[in-house]
This record gives sequence, C-alpha cells and structure tokens, in this order.
Amino acid sequence: MSGNTFGKLFTVTSFGESHGVAIGCVIDGCPPGMSLSEADIQPDLDRRKPGTSKYVTQRKEDDKVRILSGVFEGKTTGTPIALLIENTDQRSYDYAKIAQVFRPNHADYAYIQKYGIRDHRGGGRSSARETAVRVAAGAVAKKYLAEKLGVTVRGYLAQMGPIVLDRVDWAEVNNNAFFSPDASRIPELEALIDQLRRDGDSVGALIRVVATGLPPGLGEPVFDRLDADIAHALMGINAVKGVEIGDGMKVAAMRGTEHRDEMTPQGFLSNHSGGVSGGISTGQDLVCALAIKPTSSITTPGKSIDSDGNAVDMRTTGRHDPCVGIRATPIAEAMVALVLIDHLLRHRGQNADVQPATPRIAPQA
Amino acid sequence: MSGNTFGKLFTVTSFGESHGVAIGCVIDGCPPGMSLSEADIQPDLDRRKPGTSKYVTQRKEDDKVRILSGVFEGKTTGTPIALLIENTDQRSYDYAKIAQVFRPNHADYAYIQKYGIRDHRGGGRSSARETAVRVAAGAVAKKYLAEKLGVTVRGYLAQMGPIVLDRVDWAEVNNNAFFSPDASRIPELEALIDQLRRDGDSVGALIRVVATGLPPGLGEPVFDRLDADIAHALMGINAVKGVEIGDGMKVAAMRGTEHRDEMTPQGFLSNHSGGVSGGISTGQDLVCALAIKPTSSITTPGKSIDSDGNAVDMRTTGRHDPCVGIRATPIAEAMVALVLIDHLLRHRGQNADVQPATPRIAPQA
Amino acid sequence: MSGNTFGKLFTVTSFGESHGVAIGCVIDGCPPGMSLSEADIQPDLDRRKPGTSKYVTQRKEDDKVRILSGVFEGKTTGTPIALLIENTDQRSYDYAKIAQVFRPNHADYAYIQKYGIRDHRGGGRSSARETAVRVAAGAVAKKYLAEKLGVTVRGYLAQMGPIVLDRVDWAEVNNNAFFSPDASRIPELEALIDQLRRDGDSVGALIRVVATGLPPGLGEPVFDRLDADIAHALMGINAVKGVEIGDGMKVAAMRGTEHRDEMTPQGFLSNHSGGVSGGISTGQDLVCALAIKPTSSITTPGKSIDSDGNAVDMRTTGRHDPCVGIRATPIAEAMVALVLIDHLLRHRGQNADVQPATPRIAPQA
Amino acid sequence: MSGNTFGKLFTVTSFGESHGVAIGCVIDGCPPGMSLSEADIQPDLDRRKPGTSKYVTQRKEDDKVRILSGVFEGKTTGTPIALLIENTDQRSYDYAKIAQVFRPNHADYAYIQKYGIRDHRGGGRSSARETAVRVAAGAVAKKYLAEKLGVTVRGYLAQMGPIVLDRVDWAEVNNNAFFSPDASRIPELEALIDQLRRDGDSVGALIRVVATGLPPGLGEPVFDRLDADIAHALMGINAVKGVEIGDGMKVAAMRGTEHRDEMTPQGFLSNHSGGVSGGISTGQDLVCALAIKPTSSITTPGKSIDSDGNAVDMRTTGRHDPCVGIRATPIAEAMVALVLIDHLLRHRGQNADVQPATPRIAPQA
Repeated sequence: MSGNTFGKLFTVTSFGESHGVAIGCVIDGCPPGMSLSEADIQPDLDRRKPGTSKYVTQRKEDDKVRILSGVFEGKTTGTPIALLIENTDQRSYDYAKIAQVFRPNHADYAYIQKYGIRDHRGGGRSSARETAVRVAAGAVAKKYLAEKLGVTVRGYLAQMGPIVLDRVDWAEVNNNAFFSPDASRIPELEALIDQLRRDGDSVGALIRVVATGLPPGLGEPVFDRLDADIAHALMGINAVKGVEIGDGMKVAAMRGTEHRDEMTPQGFLSNHSGGVSGGISTGQDLVCALAIKPTSSITTPGKSIDSDGNAVDMRTTGRHDPCVGIRATPIAEAMVALVLIDHLLRHRGQNADVQPATPRIAPQA
Repeated sequence: MSGNTFGKLFTVTSFGESHGVAIGCVIDGCPPGMSLSEADIQPDLDRRKPGTSKYVTQRKEDDKVRILSGVFEGKTTGTPIALLIENTDQRSYDYAKIAQVFRPNHADYAYIQKYGIRDHRGGGRSSARETAVRVAAGAVAKKYLAEKLGVTVRGYLAQMGPIVLDRVDWAEVNNNAFFSPDASRIPELEALIDQLRRDGDSVGALIRVVATGLPPGLGEPVFDRLDADIAHALMGINAVKGVEIGDGMKVAAMRGTEHRDEMTPQGFLSNHSGGVSGGISTGQDLVCALAIKPTSSITTPGKSIDSDGNAVDMRTTGRHDPCVGIRATPIAEAMVALVLIDHLLRHRGQNADVQPATPRIAPQA
Repeated sequence: MSGNTFGKLFTVTSFGESHGVAIGCVIDGCPPGMSLSEADIQPDLDRRKPGTSKYVTQRKEDDKVRILSGVFEGKTTGTPIALLIENTDQRSYDYAKIAQVFRPNHADYAYIQKYGIRDHRGGGRSSARETAVRVAAGAVAKKYLAEKLGVTVRGYLAQMGPIVLDRVDWAEVNNNAFFSPDASRIPELEALIDQLRRDGDSVGALIRVVATGLPPGLGEPVFDRLDADIAHALMGINAVKGVEIGDGMKVAAMRGTEHRDEMTPQGFLSNHSGGVSGGISTGQDLVCALAIKPTSSITTPGKSIDSDGNAVDMRTTGRHDPCVGIRATPIAEAMVALVLIDHLLRHRGQNADVQPATPRIAPQA
Repeated sequence: MSGNTFGKLFTVTSFGESHGVAIGCVIDGCPPGMSLSEADIQPDLDRRKPGTSKYVTQRKEDDKVRILSGVFEGKTTGTPIALLIENTDQRSYDYAKIAQVFRPNHADYAYIQKYGIRDHRGGGRSSARETAVRVAAGAVAKKYLAEKLGVTVRGYLAQMGPIVLDRVDWAEVNNNAFFSPDASRIPELEALIDQLRRDGDSVGALIRVVATGLPPGLGEPVFDRLDADIAHALMGINAVKGVEIGDGMKVAAMRGTEHRDEMTPQGFLSNHSGGVSGGISTGQDLVCALAIKPTSSITTPGKSIDSDGNAVDMRTTGRHDPCVGIRATPIAEAMVALVLIDHLLRHRGQNADVQPATPRIAPQA
C-alpha cells in the first residue's frame, strides 16, 4: 500500500489537505454491534483542536466530524465507517508567500523532491491538521477497547523544553490546556510559552502514553511486535524524533539486575519493560513515550532557498504553536489505541482456540 | 499478515527456532539481474556470529547460509530467494531445566499466554538466533543499495553501559569485536565485560546506524513514513526499548532556533533531523539509533514462577553475552537496509514519472 | 485488511451504503502530476447510472462525484484522492417492508449471519450502488493508463439471456443503453426486456472486457498473477458467478494444437490465452469475460423466511433492472483498469533496472 | 507484496524453481496447538505427484516434504511453519535445447520481457512443480478445517476434453489416476490419453471442488469476497483460464425464477449460487470449478522464435502430461482450503462478538 492506510485488520485510510475541501478517513474492520455516534468522537477532537487556549495556535478549526457510513440505527454494522471533517477556515492567502520557498525543516523540500508538485497551502498533506483524522479514528478504537476489554489509553505531557513533569495525577491531565499531570507546574509552562512568543522561538516536548487493562498475548513476533508497531505508530506522528517503550533509551546504561522485571505468584515486581516482552503484551501497563521536536514555524528568520535555488531569509508568519507537543497528547493516545485494537483482532483471529493460560499473574505484586 | 513478513515490495518472510532444524527466510521482490552468491551474504553473518571473541557468547553457531532459489547462473531472477541456515549446535539439554519455569524479562511468559504452547529450547522463536536471518536478508538489500544507488549503510557501538563512544572512526569499527568506532576505548570495554562476568550481570548498549548517499524522496506519508518504518524495524529487534532519528529524544528539550536545519544553495547547514523531513528522505545522511536493554540471562539469581505458578529462584546458566548489544550492529544495519530498499521500490513504482526536481541541494554545505 | 481496500500500490478503499449519507472512496497511490477534475470521472458514472433509459431501473441516482483531496491546481499531487458521491434519492420506505425478511439469493441472510446486524435499506452495503465508487476510481486509473501508456480498457455486452452478441463494432457500444456492440440486435434486446417485465422475471448476462496497448511484463507470479488478480477483481463485482481469460471455460474441451498461440518474428498468430502467459502480460490484448446472474429482485413471488425463521412468500417490489448485467460494463472496465494500474506500479517498482527485452514481437502477426 | 505470498492472516510464501536446489514455503499464521507431522502432508503430495501411473508424466519427483520449524513435540506453536521439498531429479540436459527458444504458450517469453532473465531449466519458477508447495500448505489448512470445523474440501475431474463426467461417486475419486468420480468412464479416459500420445497432442480439463460443512459468515465484502478470493486462488493455478462459482458462466443465459435459491424454515431449496451470497458463505456447500488449458508442451511442432528473434520450428520433447488437468485436483483443493482458513481467521478476528444468528437454516431442505 501507499502509506495512508494504517493497520491490518482494523484499518484507517486517511485523506485530506490542510486547506482542501475536507479531511477524513475510512475505518475498515470495526467490529459490528457497538453503539457509535458523532458524540463519541467529538470530545477527543475538541481536546486536540487549536484555538482552545491562548497557549496554542489561534486558528479556528471547527473540526466537526460527521459519520457518513457504517453505522445503522446507532450501531456499527461491520462495514466501513467513513468520517468527514470539513475545512472551514481556509485562509490560503496566509500561505501564498511561502509557495515559492522551502521552509527550513518542514516537509516542503522533501515533498517537491518526491512528487515534483506540492500543495503549499498550510503545508497541504504534511500539515498537523491531518492528525485530527487520527484522533477521530482513535476515538472509535478507544471506545471498543474500553467497552469490550476494559482497556483505557491515556496520555500526558511529561516534558516541555526544560520543564520535566514527573508527578502524575491523572485527574489533572484534562483540566488544563497543556495536558499537564501536575497542576502546580502550570504557571511554569505558561511562562515558558510566553517567553517563546517573545523570543520568536519554539520548544520540544515529551508525551507519555499508558494503556491499562491490556490482556497478555497481543503482538505478532517477530516483525510485527506490539512494541515495534507502537514505534511505527508514534514515529509516524508529525515532528516525532524518538520513541521509547518502558525504560526506553536509558536501558543503554542499565544493568540486567536493575532492569529485569522479576515475577512472583502475586504479580510482577516492576515494569521496566513497559508491558511488552518478546514483542507480546504481558498484561502489565503498556508504557511508551515520544519526543516531539520544536516546530520549525518560528518568527526568527532562518536561511533557506526558493524554488529557483536562490538563497532567501525565511520568517514564518501566521498562527503557530510555540510548542506543537502540547496538542500531541490526544494524537498519541489515538495511535496507541489503533495499534492495540488491530493486534487484538489479529490475535483473536489466529489464537481463538487457545485457552487462557495458567498461571496468569497480576500486573503488579 | 501474521507478523513474520517484513516489507511491502521487498519482503522478507522469516522462519525457524533456535534449536529446530534450521532457520531461514524467503526474500520476495529482489530486483532481477543482480549478481549474488553466498559469498555476498556470509561476511555479514560472520560479523554477527557468536563465539568470535571472548567478549561474546562462546556458543558455536556455524551460520553457514545456503541460497535455495531465485538465483540462476549467478544472478537474481526476480523470483523468491530462499536462504537457509541449518542449526548445528543444538545442545537442548542446556535448556531442559528451564522448560518449566519462566525466565524473568524473557518472552517465555508472554509466549505461553499468547499461544498456550512454547518451544522452550534456547528460547525457540524468541531467541536472538532468529536475527541471523535478518542479517542475511539485509546483506542482499545492502548489495543492491550499494551497487545501484551508491548507498552505504553502516553502524557502530555508540554506548555500552556507562561508556559513551563519541569519537567515530569508521575505519576502526570492523576491526574489533565491539564494533567500537574508537580503538582507544577498547580496553575500557574489555574491562567492563570482564567485570560483568565477575558480577554475574549484564549491561545495555546504544547502536547508531548511518545511511549515506540516499536520494531524496523515499518514504510514504502519512503512516508509512521513512522514519516510522525505521522505528518499526529497529524496535522489532530483540531487546530494543528505544529508537531515535536524528537528535532523537533530546529534541524535547531543544528550541526551534537550535534544531531547525537551515538550507543554503550550497547545501544543508546541519542535520538535526537525521535525514528525514515530513517522513521523506531529504538526501542528507539518515541517522538513527537504538537502545538495547541488558540481557536478562544473567547468573545472579532472580525471582520468578514456574508453570504451576509457584515461586522459584531463577539463575540462568549456559552461554550468554554480558552485552547482547555488541552483536546488534550488523542486525541494525540489516533492518535499516531492508527499510530503504522497500521504500526505494515503492517510491519508484509510484513516482516513476517525476523528473528529478530542481533545485536539489547538497547533503551538507 | 478487512476487505474494502483493493490493490497494493494503487489502492482504492470504498465506503458507503445504498441509503446512507454518501458513498465514496479514497484512492491512495495515484502518481502525481496528472491533470484531474470531476469532469474526467463523471462520464463513466453517467454510463453506469440507473434511470438513463427505460430498459434500466428508473431510480434517480444523481451520482455527482466530488474530489475532496489529492488534487491541487488541477493536478494530482501523489497524496490520497478522496471521492464523494452523496445519496440524494433515499426512499427508504420502499424497503421498510423487507426489513424483517430475507430476500432469496440476496446477501440479506449472509450479512445477518456474519455481522449479527444489517442495514436493510436498499441492501445497504451489498447494494449495487456501491459499484458507482468503483467506476469513479476506475476512471482515474483509465485516465493514467491512457495518457501514460496508451492503454485503453473497453467492454461490451456479449450476451443477454439467450441473445449472444458476437459481432463487435466498438463504435456502437456507447451509442445504446445496452452497451451492445451490434446495433442491429438492439430491437431483440429491447423485446427481451419488455418480455421480462411482463413475466416478472430477470435474466443474466455476459460482459467482455478488452485492454489494448498493454506492455508485456505486468503480473506477479505465482499468486498475484495478472489473470488471478483480474479474476479476483471481476468475481468481486456483485452478482458475478464466472470469470474467463482468453478462451475461458471452453479450454477444457480444446486440444493443445488448437489452443496454443504460435509466435513468429512478425507477431503472435492467435490470442487464445487472452494476453496472459504464466500470469504475465504478453503484450497482446488482454481479453476477459464475466457472467452475471439474473437479479433475484423480481416480482414473481418466491419462498423465503423472515427474521423469526417463519416461512414467507416474498415478492420484490420497487425499481429493479430486469438485467443488472446491462449496467455492468463500465464497472467491469473499471475493475480491469484498477488491476492494470496496480500491476504497472508494482512492476516498475521491482523491475526498473530491466532493459526492454529483445526480441519483442507484435501483438498480432 | 511481490506476488509469492498468499493470504492475509494464514499466509503461505512460496519459493523455488523446478530444477533448483529445493522448493518450499513458509506458512505464517497457523493456529497453535494442532498436532502436525510430515505424515499429515505427504499423502496429498503423493496424490499430486507425477509418475504414479502411465497416464501422467513419468518424471520421478520424490516430493518428500520436511517440516523445518513451527512444530514442537508434535504440535504447531503458532510460529512460522517452513516446509521443504528437495529437488532430486534435475535432468537439466533435457531442457538445455530450449534455453534459447521460447516455447509457444509457455511463460518463457513473458518472463524474459518482465525480468530480462529467466531460469529456463524445466520452466524454472513457472513450472507446475511449484504447485507441490501449494498442495503441502493446503494439507495443513485442510487438517485444521477438518479438525476444528468439520469442513471437508474435495475435488474431482469433471471433464477431460470431450468426456464430461457428470455422475459423482466420491468414493471412487481417489481410487483412480484421473480423480474420476465415475469408475465406469475410466476406459474412455485411458483411451483418450493413449490417442493424444499417438497424436502428439494434449487436451484441457475441468475440475470441480466442493467444500462441505462451512459455517455461514466467511468472506469480506466488498473486494475480498469469499468467491472473489476463490477466483483469485484458482485462476492463480498454472494453466487455468476460467473459474466458476455455483452455476458459473451459464447464469448468463438463466432467468431469475430459475436461478434464485429459495429458502424455507427447513433449509435452502437449491444451491445455484454455490454457497456464496453477497460474497459471504451461506452455510451451503461451496461449489466451484476451474478450466485448465491443454498443455502447450506437445510433440507436434509449432512455430516460435528464438532469443535472437528468428523463426524456429519448436517440438517439445521430454516427459509431459497429455492432460495436466489430471493432476490439478489436489492443487485446486489446496487453494480452496487456503482461502477458507484465511477467511475463517479474518472473520473470527473481526466478528468474535457476534452471537450465532437466528434463524440459521439447513444447507438443504
């Protein structure tokens, strides 16, 4: 396939450009019989939406989702579910001036090299706007996982620039514009954003996602491991440059006695592996993280070239987030949910005969 | 598919257990007309092979590869290339004692939960032995990339436990058992391995892989981005817990002015993005890294359970590497090469009409 | 995947129910740089549309297609092309009476067994209305094939019930409501339709499709042969029960001396094989045929059961074609075009290095 | 993928050339816990094997299959099952003379056009020898279908040239070298083969396959319908030119009142549709047929060209079947079984929540 379809049994095929008519997707493989309406999807879209606070871009994206198919009398039918989000705020003129130049560290140059043509309006297909579609599809996956398996998928902002948020209170995450798990640090976050605006600069972020309630057994070794597919999903989000499972990059410096998760009849004694062993879920919490680069759309001028190859000094104007990572939490949750539901369907297709194995121990002792 | 096939157009289907009859793979989609023999593949297998120095496991794996099909009179024919590596050193008795217990942090527990049955001999399918197959397939991909495109894919050990190797001399990498890029640090590495043996412990590692000479345009947004597929490939290697592209996880703390790669008519001024922008190669070096956990097979006893759910104290015996990361360099190179060739075939299938775009600038100014 | 995506590199993902909000599809993998607008697609939709003559159903389906994405300033960009056709004539009341019964030989019973739920309105997802989407996607494929390769894909009605049309004048095919290649037989076809309406009955049909101008080399043995993928494509059209390549079913009674296509330096002497040999195109015309069953939606009552398992006498009312095969010609053309473009992209991805082989002979001596 | 992998969840990846080292395959996705040994596979290979009677080619192919992986202590483990069949009778000299000419109606010309190179020894990859691999993989699928679902997949010779075998006694099929379902017609079949040998000619055949005991619900509309995937599977067998489901091609001449399968509380009243409705199995017998062309390898000389483009008179020598269709019965059974198991796994992955629907009626009243 050509890169815009995600998943093997629960597939999401995404389409749409930032300033085109609409963006949307087709979900194929959603199990039948689940109640579903726009009201199940809209809340996650609203969480991702720009313009909800002064700390994110003030573009107005209505992001109203419509279900075009696959639902009958309020229930999924097992046929494809098409979701459509019309683009209402298409101020192309904001972008006309960048039609002939390549913004540094944007996809502009790579797209023209690959396709020989690009829709420059708002980044076209490479715009973060496309991620709204993933959030919408992820909401459907999350609903199924929650209702059928009791699995919850939740994320939070773990770091923004120099500010590391290591105290996690899940009850706070959705109460602030930053998805910060620590309410006491919000003033610091606000101050940093204000400073960045003044500096004409941007900053990176770290998001952590945790899935709780997973059954053991999800993941298909050797290539389509659960963690490998999580990595594919998260590295596929715009601006992500690093992905971790469990202890992540710091395992390079760890010792075996320190890292291994010992097991007792009462449960696991630790979760350094982040819930995945040999590429298969263990029943512990799935814990993963993603690092998002600072957006390159900043007002501090930078060197670039135009489409004739001439040197230009480039200064991005328009409405941009000083930290695109802030809005990435619902996107990351969505991608993790899409991986999990796909692996659930694959696993139960192949292993329907397997009796739940004994001994099965608790996620935590 | 069910997880043992990698790639879309250049596919590798892997099979085999650590102590079964043989391991091997089928490569489907290799372009026809390339000269190929076992001699093109064996050197990379020998680089990965255990027992080549006292710093890695002393198991004797002959790892002699045979080409069973797809090559005629010394050239590839475009039909499937089957590679076979027979298992010659199958001392199952070493492993009989672990048949009824789950080694902590190994795949044992997850496999039994998923499949209800497991081949416990040497880890069966979850053994690192399976990675020999990837190295063999990767050697075929590397040859094509080098001969047709002038692309080289090379890796090195960037960190082992606390020892960070930041001086890179490519000429040294294949001259030592550690794939260290800095000959002067080898005594330190040797001392650490000796210490770990005495401690009955193990340590993690960081491998970096660099692909040079890539054309711009490889990668299929939005889901099958080049970097997303690299992440899938590398996180799919046994024991990997983190994957980075370019600046990787540390982008979370960076500013936009610091991270963005400015462009001039003479070339890029930096490569923080690791050669990928918007999921598509830019023509700069592709730079990625993977963190490998310390092996859980250590002689220091650890808590675990047996197949009846009883608590046991587990002490792994047998021949194990104190740092499995040492042998991971050729594996990581192979996986990167497999991603690149697959994307090359996909790209030229879809975009054969595209004229090389102007302006195309140099990887580095 | 879950069955609503067609193709590997040029993929079409279809969605929508007969009486839902809309039907449509996402085309992923269309090469960039081709001019495209709704005007390139609408004519084929109009050819398929019901209500264009008194010989087909009088339902009014507007079938106005809109391009939602993937086209910028009149040219394809290489990103997904979403096509949308809104449903405007949704007289569900016509179908309310069949909500609780299973129409004989319709998909009703099979859908409820598979999914436990079905959208009964007009057949829901199993309605022939879904094929409008294929025609739209096929129009895009046909345009590329024609412009880049000079390949034309054309079909005609070869048989309707007892009437066999064996004189082919391509110039006539699109001049009549039957896609008859023989204008002189049209009165017979009209008389048969009138008779069927009086009888409350329906009749089957045979469609033949011919692709001219194909390069040799398309098709991926051994499973994804060109002819195997054509068979998959055509048997996947509603109501098709048989598919033939070249001489088709009658090869069972033929002798080798009669069937083999001899070759001379001037070209092939015959085309019994229908343009495919060993699963690969030979450069001759691709010739295939499909047999379409008589529609089961007839006014003559038939035995069936209701959703409680009780016997019922079933008489389909509403607007139905006495011969659904009449409208199948553009659908079959579309499916053949989709197979050809997909194989073209796959072939040139893998075999870009292959020099056009000598000797290459003419399709016909 | 590149054409040598069949299936989505139960995949078979085939490799090997007629006169290479070995042929074989990797089965990925076989459910764990099924007992399996070579003895489960060998009987079907022996049924397909040449040289078992004087009516088929006297080549000696030992066709001894070995299981290389995926089975532990006599049971499948859920990991890939590699099957290997070594080539023992490689008399390449028989074929040396055809290295520089293209046999009419063979794949020779198409392969050289596609790949620019071909393994001419015995047809290389395009040889019917490759089908041994499919038979081996199909035997694994058949075993699972039989043991877990009570589904049997059986075929027979329905026509050879002018001889139509319409009396079916399943007990006779495997008692004769022709897979004839009617013992009384065997002398006629023998006489025809003898005549063809004298004439230096060959003849086509029709094979019919019936699967009994299928649950309703298998098949994924709209593209991956059960019948569409059967068509893909059967048209993908060497030399097949036509595929039918149920009444097949003759539906073109039928009326709706004649073709529709009426339903009663006691069961279906007929099975014209061959067990598939809307692309989904109904629970009735799946009935399909395939037409196999007369082999082009005949001793009567025919016109062809050599690799310099010169006209040659071609006379195939060597050991060839006057009717390759005779040996196709086990191959066709295997392909049907592979489609069924794949759809079973897909169906139960997606629809595990669906309660068996009421009313479910009998296959036959």
